[in-house]
Amino acid sequence: MSSLHPHRYFSAENAPLAHELYQTVADLPLVCPHGHVDPRLFSDPDYRFGSPTELFLIPDHYIFRMLYSQGIRLEELAVPRQDGGATEGDHRKAWQKFAEHYYLFRGTPTGIWLKEAFADLFDLMEPLNGENAQAVYDLMAERLDSADLHPRPLFDRFNIEVLCTTDAATDTLEHHQAIRDSGWHGRILPTFRPDAVVNLDTENWRDNIDQLSDVSGVDVIDYPSFVQALEQRRSFFKQMGATATDHAALTAHSARLSDAEAARIFQAALQGKITAESATQFTAHMLNEMARMSVEDGLVMQLHVGSYRNHNADIFAKFGRDKGADIPITTEFTRNLRPLLNRYANDPNFKLIFFNLDETTYARELAPLAGHYPAVKLGPPWWFHDSLNGMRRYFDQVMETAGLYNTAGFNDDTRAYPSIPARHTVWRRASADWVAGLISQHIVSESEGAEMVQALAYDLAKSAYNL
Amino acid sequence: MSSLHPHRYFSAENAPLAHELYQTVADLPLVCPHGHVDPRLFSDPDYRFGSPTELFLIPDHYIFRMLYSQGIRLEELAVPRQDGGATEGDHRKAWQKFAEHYYLFRGTPTGIWLKEAFADLFDLMEPLNGENAQAVYDLMAERLDSADLHPRPLFDRFNIEVLCTTDAATDTLEHHQAIRDSGWHGRILPTFRPDAVVNLDTENWRDNIDQLSDVSGVDVIDYPSFVQALEQRRSFFKQMGATATDHAALTAHSARLSDAEAARIFQAALQGKITAESATQFTAHMLNEMARMSVEDGLVMQLHVGSYRNHNADIFAKFGRDKGADIPITTEFTRNLRPLLNRYANDPNFKLIFFNLDETTYARELAPLAGHYPAVKLGPPWWFHDSLNGMRRYFDQVMETAGLYNTAGFNDDTRAYPSIPARHTVWRRASADWVAGLISQHIVSESEGAEMVQALAYDLAKSAYNL
Amino acid sequence: MSSLHPHRYFSAENAPLAHELYQTVADLPLVCPHGHVDPRLFSDPDYRFGSPTELFLIPDHYIFRMLYSQGIRLEELAVPRQDGGATEGDHRKAWQKFAEHYYLFRGTPTGIWLKEAFADLFDLMEPLNGENAQAVYDLMAERLDSADLHPRPLFDRFNIEVLCTTDAATDTLEHHQAIRDSGWHGRILPTFRPDAVVNLDTENWRDNIDQLSDVSGVDVIDYPSFVQALEQRRSFFKQMGATATDHAALTAHSARLSDAEAARIFQAALQGKITAESATQFTAHMLNEMARMSVEDGLVMQLHVGSYRNHNADIFAKFGRDKGADIPITTEFTRNLRPLLNRYANDPNFKLIFFNLDETTYARELAPLAGHYPAVKLGPPWWFHDSLNGMRRYFDQVMETAGLYNTAGFNDDTRAYPSIPARHTVWRRASADWVAGLISQHIVSESEGAEMVQALAYDLAKSAYNL
Repeated sequence: MSSLHPHRYFSAENAPLAHELYQTVADLPLVCPHGHVDPRLFSDPDYRFGSPTELFLIPDHYIFRMLYSQGIRLEELAVPRQDGGATEGDHRKAWQKFAEHYYLFRGTPTGIWLKEAFADLFDLMEPLNGENAQAVYDLMAERLDSADLHPRPLFDRFNIEVLCTTDAATDTLEHHQAIRDSGWHGRILPTFRPDAVVNLDTENWRDNIDQLSDVSGVDVIDYPSFVQALEQRRSFFKQMGATATDHAALTAHSARLSDAEAARIFQAALQGKITAESATQFTAHMLNEMARMSVEDGLVMQLHVGSYRNHNADIFAKFGRDKGADIPITTEFTRNLRPLLNRYANDPNFKLIFFNLDETTYARELAPLAGHYPAVKLGPPWWFHDSLNGMRRYFDQVMETAGLYNTAGFNDDTRAYPSIPARHTVWRRASADWVAGLISQHIVSESEGAEMVQALAYDLAKSAYNL
Repeated sequence: MSSLHPHRYFSAENAPLAHELYQTVADLPLVCPHGHVDPRLFSDPDYRFGSPTELFLIPDHYIFRMLYSQGIRLEELAVPRQDGGATEGDHRKAWQKFAEHYYLFRGTPTGIWLKEAFADLFDLMEPLNGENAQAVYDLMAERLDSADLHPRPLFDRFNIEVLCTTDAATDTLEHHQAIRDSGWHGRILPTFRPDAVVNLDTENWRDNIDQLSDVSGVDVIDYPSFVQALEQRRSFFKQMGATATDHAALTAHSARLSDAEAARIFQAALQGKITAESATQFTAHMLNEMARMSVEDGLVMQLHVGSYRNHNADIFAKFGRDKGADIPITTEFTRNLRPLLNRYANDPNFKLIFFNLDETTYARELAPLAGHYPAVKLGPPWWFHDSLNGMRRYFDQVMETAGLYNTAGFNDDTRAYPSIPARHTVWRRASADWVAGLISQHIVSESEGAEMVQALAYDLAKSAYNL
Repeated sequence: MSSLHPHRYFSAENAPLAHELYQTVADLPLVCPHGHVDPRLFSDPDYRFGSPTELFLIPDHYIFRMLYSQGIRLEELAVPRQDGGATEGDHRKAWQKFAEHYYLFRGTPTGIWLKEAFADLFDLMEPLNGENAQAVYDLMAERLDSADLHPRPLFDRFNIEVLCTTDAATDTLEHHQAIRDSGWHGRILPTFRPDAVVNLDTENWRDNIDQLSDVSGVDVIDYPSFVQALEQRRSFFKQMGATATDHAALTAHSARLSDAEAARIFQAALQGKITAESATQFTAHMLNEMARMSVEDGLVMQLHVGSYRNHNADIFAKFGRDKGADIPITTEFTRNLRPLLNRYANDPNFKLIFFNLDETTYARELAPLAGHYPAVKLGPPWWFHDSLNGMRRYFDQVMETAGLYNTAGFNDDTRAYPSIPARHTVWRRASADWVAGLISQHIVSESEGAEMVQALAYDLAKSAYNL
């Protein structure tokens, strides 16, 4: 990345000081406590990325949603259909479309990550466009064959200290086992994500429960055995190195049911007689139950709320989930989470990390909650807000009330492995820029600022996730 | 405007680069795709503005609301009462009141527009005050008599390429016809705004329906004939040059009714038996129906939501609508608009432009929607947010996720004809300032930035509205 | 404070001009129209602050909440338990804990206030830490004995022109009377706060009513006598120098009940048969009734809404109110306050000042309301938002629409007497920084800017509260 500007992403007025601060953390290892990289990249020593289109375009809904928003059909971009419909088979053609519309990413975080990755991995400095599309494709395809761009060598090149994946409660973690067995030195840890069994309205929920019985060895026939199976899986994940769980919910609603009521709803679900209302209640209840287990087993609990998934029915029917059609909604924490927080969050050994897409809650609810309850930490700006402006708004709205030390550092939350260094670079530079501003306003001293930048770049994430 | 500062409205750190970028677009023609200028200004070649008070104060609720908020009665400002009550008849006295309180506009967009217009049209650089009030009045009154300050010459002086008005569905567009017939070269286009017939709780709705029957030639006796009459009017507006429609609603609620249910509600309304609940449902239904028609006839659909009109009952009773007492409310798009978006917004030939007064939706809902659905574009910051800070927040919160090219450029949305150049100047300067910041942070290159400024100043509006 | 940096809290790009503007107001007297300082500090000429721990730590929930959020028990911090439980008795030990975690306040407003107060009162420039904790304690304890650090001399040293306290409707104001009787020159005024009698669900409400009967001389046996007693108290407070009232409510709901309905609910409450729903209705009603009284007696009405009090049930049970566990909620003004505003807010002699913890209402609701209704003024950023960033967001989001002259200047709203100068310093510096930005962007002239800074620092507060 030597040829990208050394002062990039710094505000003009902070640039020299921000640069100085950034230099002190630029080479620290990357701590990646939450993300969606497929462990197969590392379990299979011969894993290859495929074509440039397979590496950058097809799996990345940040990219193809923007092209789709401008009228380019996903089929033209070689995104596979789940309903059996035809899609473009020629990756070069899809790449050409992408290249012709690369200008759409001006000023976006995706544009920044692409630029960083192109420069870092391929020494490409020129913006992609219709003219250079095929030459770039050739160059990339050739480079992707070379051994230094395979996943394991990249892990070292990226200077990753630890990378956590996200895995279904029913996952056997065979790929994690294979990584361990291989003797490779990379530290890849699983994370326990039980959404597909605790959210009763998940597609194929009944199948997931059967699978849960299989992998846990606990025959899930009622609510108590369901809880027991979950506890078994948590224990197994912990053995396999997991330090955290992850939970996604539409809202932060957390009312605890009586065990009898929970059992009744679960039974109805087993019989396929679940209402939307009951499913919502059960999810709210299970958040409490998961908090209880975290207090007991020490796994850090992550909560991601506020995404209305699969908003576009037509796209969902044709292409399935995660196609750039998830739209945030307003979120409420103060009242919704009170039952859970009152019950568990006074325990300083419990850690509960929030992620959220409704920035209005930053200063109003999340920072005051994190600035009071011992268990509560705030995760970094999530998804659409994992961007320079998103980070600035986060620093601006969270830090004064929550305090830096109630935040959880950074995580890249990505399935796009090659974008990991870029994402950390943006965070570290934004952090340095923010702290430089505090110093230049004489709010903190230079030595305090240096410690804060180090905390943001490395320490906070490591400690929040017990890594 | 030569004596206003060339770096005005630029952040200190961006000023030189912003100025350079601004210079490249400062002289581009103004594209005005949405506003409320009265077409009579142009249909009557002898139209005169009247007194300075009639030009600046009486019609401008941005101005008199601020004076009212400080305890000055609207009667003192010569604002006409609709209930027959007395109002100040001496325009000089009203002007004196205005001048004495001109300092209230410090730091407000109205203050900026007034300063720009006073400088541009009257070479007045000194702030208005109690002492200079009458001298300024004299000077303005004299200048307003001169031919170069009449509406048509100003159209050229303002360098307006096209100006769209907003016209009721029942409007005969006789003034637009007169402009065409006059042979004058100015391009003035109508916009189809059916609120007064599709919102069943509009005052005088029944009269509006009769008028709709008259002008459309379709006897509106039931829901099918109502739809037919609307289609006739759209077709007529299109013939008269319209490229867009405009719809105002309190919320973004868009659930489609069955035709039978729509027919039942419409019938009840014809019989004067409409409930608030039914009216809301019907408005929500008609948004869908208008989207359907736009898909068919290609008229761009604009949606303005979130203003609680006529909040002050006393002012409404005495002075009527549009008296500075419209107050925004929270708005929700993700769930409310889903029915409409799912049905129509995957069509890349459909254009749906959103305007909104609840900025919390920018990053949370609007940018993700615009960054996904092919039909969705985001209009510029509206009303209270049509200001330097409003624009900064918009650039900050919208652009990273929506992408610049899913926005619709600028429109001045004003009935204050003399303020049009000032409003575009503020937008173009704010755009240049924003892009200068991106360049100085090395997020986009200088050549990319130059294209972005050009898009914001001219291209995006023209293309979003098919002009 | 001579050794703190003269440019502190100014943005780098505005610093020289901001400094120049700040100098013009730095020495103006402090107007403190709203706060929670105990009048006993001034009624008793021999009042002493006690230990450093008693002065800074024990009474300040801003401080101990942050320590609590990091797992330090309030008992360790010498915060007294209300349930009879044991707490740390050694103030030096509590101070040590505080000192060891002083770094948590980096970048927070509390950190700024502490730094300012330590420097100003004790000439301490070094950040507190585990090593210097006891030496600092010794130094402070010694200095606190000296006469110049007693409350009355500090009043002069702080250059306070007037300081308003907040007092229950049932308060006899004996301490205020004692201050008057003492012949001391300091101007300390009471503020009428009737929450504990108008909110029917207050703990010990029935006792409070009895006390109201006692102090007012009106036997409160029904709604009319209740109203009469309140009017008596307001009249008494006014005699004692009060110029304002203060009202806290969870929401801004303000629907007026019929007198019969109000009487019915009040009667039920007297009989101990009150529902949550009725209590909410009655609070909403009493806001109207208090507005009516303000229109009649001229007391300025303050409204603080949006804090969910005592969120943490465990802490509340052990330690009681005001322990850093109050969490904001979303607030709605446009519809909720319409009944009250329509009835009273067109009266230019009525003043209604809003405080709020949901910043999303700034630009959306509060600024448009203040920019229209003659009675409405906006109070400064409150509580969590009484911070540098909170002020910047306030200036950014409020001023363009409300106009500077519909705001109410600053108040420190603190029970931490030694932090008063620091809070005003932060506001005055933030004001100067904001205005410097307007000048450097050529939005206002230097002379206009100087007047604006003076208004923010002094004039607006004095005039808004009729002081």
